[in-house]
Amino acid sequence: MRAVVMRNNRLVLDDIPAPVPGPGEVLVKTLACGICGTDLHALKFAEALFAGSRCSGGIFAIDPNRNIVMGHEFCAEVVDYGPATRKRFKVGARVCSTPSLTRSAGDQSIGYSSENPGGFGEFMRLSENNLLEVPKELSPEVAALTEPMAVGYHAVIKARLERRDVALIIGCGPVGLSVIAALKLKGTAPIAAADFSPRRRELAVEMGADIVIDPREKSPYDALQTGRSSSRPAVIFECAGVPGMIDEIMSNAPRETKIVVTGLCMQRDHLYPLSGLHKELNLQFALGYTGYEFGETFQNIRKGKIRPHAMITGKVGIEGVENAFMELGSPGHHGKVLVEPWRS
Amino acid sequence: MRAVVMRNNRLVLDDIPAPVPGPGEVLVKTLACGICGTDLHALKFAEALFAGSRCSGGIFAIDPNRNIVMGHEFCAEVVDYGPATRKRFKVGARVCSTPSLTRSAGDQSIGYSSENPGGFGEFMRLSENNLLEVPKELSPEVAALTEPMAVGYHAVIKARLERRDVALIIGCGPVGLSVIAALKLKGTAPIAAADFSPRRRELAVEMGADIVIDPREKSPYDALQTGRSSSRPAVIFECAGVPGMIDEIMSNAPRETKIVVTGLCMQRDHLYPLSGLHKELNLQFALGYTGYEFGETFQNIRKGKIRPHAMITGKVGIEGVENAFMELGSPGHHGKVLVEPWRS
Repeated sequence: MRAVVMRNNRLVLDDIPAPVPGPGEVLVKTLACGICGTDLHALKFAEALFAGSRCSGGIFAIDPNRNIVMGHEFCAEVVDYGPATRKRFKVGARVCSTPSLTRSAGDQSIGYSSENPGGFGEFMRLSENNLLEVPKELSPEVAALTEPMAVGYHAVIKARLERRDVALIIGCGPVGLSVIAALKLKGTAPIAAADFSPRRRELAVEMGADIVIDPREKSPYDALQTGRSSSRPAVIFECAGVPGMIDEIMSNAPRETKIVVTGLCMQRDHLYPLSGLHKELNLQFALGYTGYEFGETFQNIRKGKIRPHAMITGKVGIEGVENAFMELGSPGHHGKVLVEPWRS
Repeated sequence: MRAVVMRNNRLVLDDIPAPVPGPGEVLVKTLACGICGTDLHALKFAEALFAGSRCSGGIFAIDPNRNIVMGHEFCAEVVDYGPATRKRFKVGARVCSTPSLTRSAGDQSIGYSSENPGGFGEFMRLSENNLLEVPKELSPEVAALTEPMAVGYHAVIKARLERRDVALIIGCGPVGLSVIAALKLKGTAPIAAADFSPRRRELAVEMGADIVIDPREKSPYDALQTGRSSSRPAVIFECAGVPGMIDEIMSNAPRETKIVVTGLCMQRDHLYPLSGLHKELNLQFALGYTGYEFGETFQNIRKGKIRPHAMITGKVGIEGVENAFMELGSPGHHGKVLVEPWRS
């Protein structure tokens, strides 16, 4: 099959063997697969990312000397069944799944794995038990957003919000946007969001932000101190993932703010414990989602309670992936870019 | 009055005017006052400490060009009443109080203030409404420990412990010891505590630790992974306050650990957000206590539910303060050293 392969910290378009579905597994054809900021990080910082996962019992398993086909935000079409399957869905049915294979020896990653190719290739294998059928009225592109939207849904659950909490989102890339959508669904108000990019601020409004801020014009933290937000408990979501941001938020946050760190900052970073102490801040790190949260997010999208359509700002065929990675490397204009490997 | 004065980052024994009690205030004679790790920090890093407090709305108010008499962990004796007081206690009654003056313009610090001398001098002024009478059966030395014990009591409340949580305390100075006592009172088990000093490990056992660890001999974090603690949620209390400790704990903590940071690290510090993310850690910074928590702690000591007596490892007169600061600068053997300014 044709696939974009990560090899020696580069992306290469190549022909590789299609995966073979094992017991309980299904062969699927990728219909749409989002490019995630973590994919960009993985290309640059593969070793740090996977070493960190290994140390903490994560499921990422990378042999840097072997082919890795990334892509973990997908919608796909059932092509064939492996042994010991119940054939729950017809061939041709469209499905979503968490990017993990459920095997007796333990879960394995799909996409961040030398064994299990992800959605930047024509075919994948998925666990039959993890499949969610995508109904006709839902496009594969929108269904593929289940995964990134589940990340925001999870972060908002980890925030343990209370009724009077006001929210500020720092960084309106896909993670920030999915946090905004989940907050809106929960009824949090006001939702303030900050990003340097006018396009991303527009997307923030589309996802449900009440206030958007250009940090060049005013401090995002003012939004927590004025009008009806004043003196209400604050939750700040760090969705930028750049070094220095945790310190910036800690310096500017009001007393007893909860800071939810979802941005994937790969480097060593700094903080001043004293500002955390004087204000008794709380830092909650949040990554990924549970299977239950993934299913909830899928249902919310299916029922139109979360409408992530506007987030899709680009689509590329398999030849366009490398270029899309470069464009996303200096973000600003994009929400989510989808790869459609079947496109010529 | 005779007092140990902080001036230009040095301690000087001096004669200064006794404070005058204002409306609603009481003049007291200091009976015993503990030396706190923060006092040592204040001497070294005065500007950083008070700048941080100012930025976050704290009550510390220092003019470095004026006399500062530190000392905020005290028991004292009523000497005289200012105007507009109810004279609730007899002259000669022994009292405790939070180290703050309640004034119409806002609270003011006692001890970290150029206006209100603390317990390293012969006399202080306190707010009558903040006084708690110390009964005969409670010695002034033990009553003076109310303040440091309230710090641990507060940290344990901030930890929002659940029934199955296991606890590990890193650093068994006075803050760590007071956390252990509060955990024991709450019924947390097992309580593991790590410190390089054999004396401090002994004190940890006296305060209620079930397991003590010399980090030179084995990893403190093993205590969270073995026997009946295995796979139970962990809470780690950072009570060392040295740079690098937050990172060390984050690297070694099990998944979803709650880390309560109470150690006062004054310097810029580092962390790797990735280890927080992969393990979805939570960092709760905790400082001080509420008036209610101070009162609860006082009652717990009065009733013998918290028995901090063993923590007192030294007593000095006013001439011994500078030397005690030096000794405590390289800790290891001491729990709490008390100043008794009335001693010749």
